[in-house]
Amino acid sequence: MTLLVVGSTAFDTIETPHGKAERCLGGSSTYFGLAARLFTPVRLVSVIGEDFPDEHRQLLAARDVCLDGLEVKAGKTFAWHGRYSSDMNDRETIDVQLNTFGDFEPKVPEHYRETPFVFLANGAPATQMSVVEQMKGPRFVVADTMDLWMDIAKDGLLELLQRIDGLILNDSEVKQLTGESNLITAGKATLALGPKLVIVKKGEHGCFVFSEDFRYALPAYPTEDVVDPTGAGDSFAGGFMGYLAHCGELSRANMQRAVAYGTVTASLNVEGFGVDKLADTTRATVDARYAELMQFVTGG
Amino acid sequence: MTLLVVGSTAFDTIETPHGKAERCLGGSSTYFGLAARLFTPVRLVSVIGEDFPDEHRQLLAARDVCLDGLEVKAGKTFAWHGRYSSDMNDRETIDVQLNTFGDFEPKVPEHYRETPFVFLANGAPATQMSVVEQMKGPRFVVADTMDLWMDIAKDGLLELLQRIDGLILNDSEVKQLTGESNLITAGKATLALGPKLVIVKKGEHGCFVFSEDFRYALPAYPTEDVVDPTGAGDSFAGGFMGYLAHCGELSRANMQRAVAYGTVTASLNVEGFGVDKLADTTRATVDARYAELMQFVTGG
Repeated sequence: MTLLVVGSTAFDTIETPHGKAERCLGGSSTYFGLAARLFTPVRLVSVIGEDFPDEHRQLLAARDVCLDGLEVKAGKTFAWHGRYSSDMNDRETIDVQLNTFGDFEPKVPEHYRETPFVFLANGAPATQMSVVEQMKGPRFVVADTMDLWMDIAKDGLLELLQRIDGLILNDSEVKQLTGESNLITAGKATLALGPKLVIVKKGEHGCFVFSEDFRYALPAYPTEDVVDPTGAGDSFAGGFMGYLAHCGELSRANMQRAVAYGTVTASLNVEGFGVDKLADTTRATVDARYAELMQFVTGG
Repeated sequence: MTLLVVGSTAFDTIETPHGKAERCLGGSSTYFGLAARLFTPVRLVSVIGEDFPDEHRQLLAARDVCLDGLEVKAGKTFAWHGRYSSDMNDRETIDVQLNTFGDFEPKVPEHYRETPFVFLANGAPATQMSVVEQMKGPRFVVADTMDLWMDIAKDGLLELLQRIDGLILNDSEVKQLTGESNLITAGKATLALGPKLVIVKKGEHGCFVFSEDFRYALPAYPTEDVVDPTGAGDSFAGGFMGYLAHCGELSRANMQRAVAYGTVTASLNVEGFGVDKLADTTRATVDARYAELMQFVTGG
């Protein structure tokens, strides 16, 4: 089945202990799309400026990412510049130019509106809600969020949680959202806010999955080769949603396999600068690493 | 098979957000022993002062912990007083009185020296080595250690690592020991220092296991009810070594099950003050929780 993502497209300038990449292709929809397309065709809704080069479009289009929903507006493309600490556990934002993304009002093209699987990348809850309202009977809608929206748009976020099926957030965010310091209690409390599925990302420590029917823990793939953590969360979400949309059926087993596929696409992504490694990855590479991850989990 | 533990016996005064316990039974050998005895008889080598009450002896002896190696010396028993932060991720030592434990020179009783399974609780590497030298052809010797010994007795620790089979330490310690910031690289580098098995504890994030033949990741049991984290590491080691000694065979499958049993005994331990919950636990309770943990890992 097809999959829609709504999020940012950006120029990223990234500094890590391993080097620097200037104005490379970035943004949540891009990382998500390049991970998800390994499993299923992706429809992208985002906004860029007139400075967005054709080669970036071609890179995405050649990889099953449909750009009919990529709006071009007068002005420049969103630009971000970040620098990671020596152990890459922290990052500092050097510069942000929201440009055309500053007043992003996602317009879902008419022929996208019946897409069954939908991912709302991190953004203002009101913006995410506007997408929900444009969709016609979606089967499975998942949102990402962040601490900022809990600070400045909590009501909107709580309203959104009543309208979506799944939420992906990190461990500190789930604690902030619920006011619970124990991760398990916080995960269960988030389920009570509406979503049927909650995925709590713990970075190098993997993730916890909460649903009404099951709980599931998965470690991160043990990569020794982290080059650039940018996009780890979105490439996780891309692998997760891509695999689920590919399956179509929302069974427990598919959900669990999807979490493992998300873990794999995130681990591949952080081994290259920007989207480089994701763009070059094949489904065969993903499957080989999935098998390795399962070995790590079962000790086989 | 039988199992020997060499470590401290103490009076602990513990403050957590859930309350305070004064001068309760504590020490690494105690937590270890009360976890391990759920699987196999335990022989304890430790030291106490003349103030150690008979009820504590009885509590241990009634639970398959043999006290022939518990030396009584003139003076007082080791006493520790600690206070946990509100989220219980940090603790402050309010007071330490080493007393008779200050110059602990473990004497392994003659009839203990052929014990096949041996656990060296955290202590000076030279003290741990003196135990190795007293044993006669042990089958499987595992040590715990800490950052302090890396700072002040690194050579002794490196020498010990050549003489033991397994090492248990936490994530920051394995990074310090090897100088590697990536946990996987650090785990592999530790194997190169001598031990055939390295278990890296990550607290609420579970543990990684490294051996020449396999790597294994296990999440912590998702307890919502952490009352007192004291002794989590030693009760983990106790469940791990206890189950392995019970099995006798050092197969990969047994090692992996042993790690899960250690995870279970540690999770039970932190749900009560001091050793209270461990002392009251039965093998049936442990097995039920083991099954739950396996469900969490497999998503069943």
